[in-house]
Amino acid sequence: MAQEETDKAIGKDMEKELASYFPFWEKLEERQRADICSHAVSSRYSKGTFVHNAAEECVGIILVRSGQLRVYIQSEDGRDITLYRLFSGDTCVLSASCFMEEITFDILIDAEEDSSLITVRPDIFRSLAKENIYAENYIYKQTAERFSDVMWTMQQILFMSFDKRLAVFLIDELAKAGGDTLYITHDQIAKYTGSAREVVSRMLKYFEGEGLVKISRGKVCVLDRKRLKELT
Amino acid sequence: MAQEETDKAIGKDMEKELASYFPFWEKLEERQRADICSHAVSSRYSKGTFVHNAAEECVGIILVRSGQLRVYIQSEDGRDITLYRLFSGDTCVLSASCFMEEITFDILIDAEEDSSLITVRPDIFRSLAKENIYAENYIYKQTAERFSDVMWTMQQILFMSFDKRLAVFLIDELAKAGGDTLYITHDQIAKYTGSAREVVSRMLKYFEGEGLVKISRGKVCVLDRKRLKELT
Repeated sequence: MAQEETDKAIGKDMEKELASYFPFWEKLEERQRADICSHAVSSRYSKGTFVHNAAEECVGIILVRSGQLRVYIQSEDGRDITLYRLFSGDTCVLSASCFMEEITFDILIDAEEDSSLITVRPDIFRSLAKENIYAENYIYKQTAERFSDVMWTMQQILFMSFDKRLAVFLIDELAKAGGDTLYITHDQIAKYTGSAREVVSRMLKYFEGEGLVKISRGKVCVLDRKRLKELT
Repeated sequence: MAQEETDKAIGKDMEKELASYFPFWEKLEERQRADICSHAVSSRYSKGTFVHNAAEECVGIILVRSGQLRVYIQSEDGRDITLYRLFSGDTCVLSASCFMEEITFDILIDAEEDSSLITVRPDIFRSLAKENIYAENYIYKQTAERFSDVMWTMQQILFMSFDKRLAVFLIDELAKAGGDTLYITHDQIAKYTGSAREVVSRMLKYFEGEGLVKISRGKVCVLDRKRLKELT
């Protein structure tokens, strides 16, 4: 009995939380809400673990309670390109793309920090989107927003010269990390900026020569943020 | 009177045509249909002319009656990357992106062949999408489809080595043109594949050396389609 009451209380909390993520919540019928609630799962992912791999398992819609996720694509030979990141309060619908026939590409998602998520199974959304135009519209609208994120990233990669891109990356990371030092390897920077490690090392060396940064093992210390910003 | 009747007849034809492009047509009220009809314009663009430039003028939703359009993005220094092409029967909603706040990037559109289009002014769709969830959903769903096209293109550019990309391009163009000869310059190939002309010329020369193609001024003749295909 006590357990049942606890379950009910948890159910109520989950419903409240889902309502805060989904703007179409009030357009749903009672049974549709109940259906989503009963298929929404709280889960935790440790930093560095895999959250979603479309080819193997379609995790469904992701709601980020806390932490940080990285969404990326990967080439056959293992190079990857970061499309965008997800932070607390964000939603990811592309991780449920297995049920959207319009989306024909695969993404991967890693936890970059210890993360707490709610995931809603994709098959639930498949039937919900068929029944309820507001739910369907929410998903496509979210997709359109991600399209813009991805286009921005692609333009960075395809059109910006790499000194600009590296400067943008370092400044963005500093803004997130605080302070002047980034604990990051050249390999990681290459991964995140979609370049080769050699290119990153060469450009960092060039930046060091210019007095913009100081490089040491696993660390990049920014010495002249103002001039680095001018590069962007 | 005669003129009025002709106008009415044209109006009826236009309504029929719009209904065939827009799956949400039957979900509209009479006045909404009339509103779209009265703001839908038939127009012709000659090969090589500009159809849409988001920064200068947002042309609105494009329906392609006949011809061929190229949708692309452009860097500040004038390099461009083809995102996708539009053929007879296709719709483009990104050319109305000025009214979608979720879409924050600009595209350009050229007529690659003499083209006959219907365009529907973006402000009409802005209010329609606010009033009618089915119209809104159509637009975002179309956007999601284009997202997939663009991701495919980006993966080609970012992940495939250029020999593969060039082979894919030549085979795709052959399929459209028929026969074995493409009337295209190295400059044009570079533009369409998002590479430098020098890179294209070098790779074509390499293909020629391999007996895959024969190059002459403004022309690429494919000699060994089977082996070219194997490259892809």
